[in-house]
Amino acid sequence: MSKPERDPSAGRHMTAEIAEQPAVLAALFAGRNEIVSVARAVRDRRPRFALLAARGSSDHAAMYAKYLVEVLLGLPAGLVSPSTVTLYESEPDLRDVLLVTVSQSGGSPDLLAVTESARRRGAVTVAVSNTADSPLATAAEFAVSIGAGAERAVAATKTYTATLLALYLLVDAVRDGDGKQAAALGQLAEDTLRDCADPVDEAVGRYRFADRMVACARGYSYASACESALKLAETSYLPARAYSGADLLHGPVAAVDAETAVLAITSAGRGGEAMREVLDVVHERGADVLAVGSAAASMPAAHRIVLPECAEELAPVLEVLPAQRLALGLALARGVDPDQPRGLRKVTRTR
Amino acid sequence: MSKPERDPSAGRHMTAEIAEQPAVLAALFAGRNEIVSVARAVRDRRPRFALLAARGSSDHAAMYAKYLVEVLLGLPAGLVSPSTVTLYESEPDLRDVLLVTVSQSGGSPDLLAVTESARRRGAVTVAVSNTADSPLATAAEFAVSIGAGAERAVAATKTYTATLLALYLLVDAVRDGDGKQAAALGQLAEDTLRDCADPVDEAVGRYRFADRMVACARGYSYASACESALKLAETSYLPARAYSGADLLHGPVAAVDAETAVLAITSAGRGGEAMREVLDVVHERGADVLAVGSAAASMPAAHRIVLPECAEELAPVLEVLPAQRLALGLALARGVDPDQPRGLRKVTRTR
Repeated sequence: MSKPERDPSAGRHMTAEIAEQPAVLAALFAGRNEIVSVARAVRDRRPRFALLAARGSSDHAAMYAKYLVEVLLGLPAGLVSPSTVTLYESEPDLRDVLLVTVSQSGGSPDLLAVTESARRRGAVTVAVSNTADSPLATAAEFAVSIGAGAERAVAATKTYTATLLALYLLVDAVRDGDGKQAAALGQLAEDTLRDCADPVDEAVGRYRFADRMVACARGYSYASACESALKLAETSYLPARAYSGADLLHGPVAAVDAETAVLAITSAGRGGEAMREVLDVVHERGADVLAVGSAAASMPAAHRIVLPECAEELAPVLEVLPAQRLALGLALARGVDPDQPRGLRKVTRTR
Repeated sequence: MSKPERDPSAGRHMTAEIAEQPAVLAALFAGRNEIVSVARAVRDRRPRFALLAARGSSDHAAMYAKYLVEVLLGLPAGLVSPSTVTLYESEPDLRDVLLVTVSQSGGSPDLLAVTESARRRGAVTVAVSNTADSPLATAAEFAVSIGAGAERAVAATKTYTATLLALYLLVDAVRDGDGKQAAALGQLAEDTLRDCADPVDEAVGRYRFADRMVACARGYSYASACESALKLAETSYLPARAYSGADLLHGPVAAVDAETAVLAITSAGRGGEAMREVLDVVHERGADVLAVGSAAASMPAAHRIVLPECAEELAPVLEVLPAQRLALGLALARGVDPDQPRGLRKVTRTR
């Protein structure tokens, strides 16, 4: 395929939207009362199970929320496969079930079908999206707007981190939390973006010619590994794939060798600590390991991007920031415009 | 890394175990009464929600079972992230919940912890494994043995397809089905293995030097795409990753170009039909598409492996057979022994 001419404005939307994140997160926290009132209504309905439905980047936010629901609320939870509704017309009994639909645009027809079907079947439905009057927000009984402002780049950045925070604030408020662990996130995101600039530039140089990358993490941060891999694959076309650290050791580690770049998300807490044994194996196999997170300094890795520490369940909001920058930088270095990935539309109309 | 000397016995376990599958499937069907009695006990407990727990290849069998549970039983279902129990000590209320744990060895410590915790919390627990007296089978209230015999190759083949069939028979019996759609599977597997030999040989030649492969499918067959990608990655070290066809269009299709090999699972039924629009896009981008399935003949693809038709919900048992052979053939062609992948043990002791 031919390279496009290098356009000086290439990546300007993605660059700007990455930089907006500290302000978006701070504003979302400041306006958390709206989320708290949705959370109270949900709590009063006493759901016994939670289902999460999403596609693309939002699917990673939903995975993150699954951990929050299971660990912080003690409710069993599952991710919805929309095709069970849209292709197979499954109509399960959803009384006592909380369905949270996560969609940046709020416009995906399959998620709309899942929401409408679930509401008919008795579920408490909550839509988390960036547009207060989206079709999804209208179809759901309750709507949470992340208020991230228009996202013009095709690659989701600020809507992803804002969605994570909105989901945290929602779940935390369902358990009557005061959300205060999230109060400093805007500032921490600013610190992260400032401090990761140089190490990300180095990483761009190092991985410009990489043929493949494996991203891995455990626990809450598994969502960060998935989102980092997706961002790299869709923006810079670096074939990247994500594994939970545990699953990696169950098979795919066989394909990890000295030619493999490994992005290991390792923040302070139980998930990051559990990565140590994974990195021992990966490191021993000669892979080039880049550890990213607040626990990166102590990990067996060749390269590190150390992030500020915060509550483990909020670390994913920060962990993805260097990966967004890396995806942007690699795209520009490889001569592609990250604002215009080949073959992507902003709203994908799968059924 | 240095290549091992080509050993004439390389891959003999995997070769033999792939060939055993028709007999294993037929025997499992013939002995389905044991599964039926477990299913009746489960049905009498009237679960309202299902959780599935697994790792590695078994995780793909669990994904398949999630579709079965949602579509055939009309119960919401979710896949368990074992780390919510093993790392975060989540102790959710699991009354009315069915937990199905899937493990070829029945020896994974994390799945054991999940099962013990769930049983304490009120769940109906069923272990599906290849060993009737495994720790997992003992920990669960009910056990289903797939009876596939010892699996000596590190790559799971016969235990995977037998697990799929056992899960189908279990779910079908919970809804009082007679299982008869599965009666011919042993014969169909034999036909598949015989008829796919030549097209798989051709595919080995074609993909020997491939740098990456994307496997995709929708619906029930999504599990086949995941298992095919894992088998290729862990056996032949071809970097392969799987996407649901819908998710592929949401972003990663940007990385699909003329240098990408696409393995598209397309069987007769709603999932296969929904792949047509995905393949139109992928084909247009110049990717080399290999369609595998009973609907492969009518798909936009450069290459095809047409499989015998069966009920859509059973097609995954057949779909993975050519991929197992492809992984085996590519491994041998690339000079590695598929019976001894680098860095893999048969039971992986993650927590």
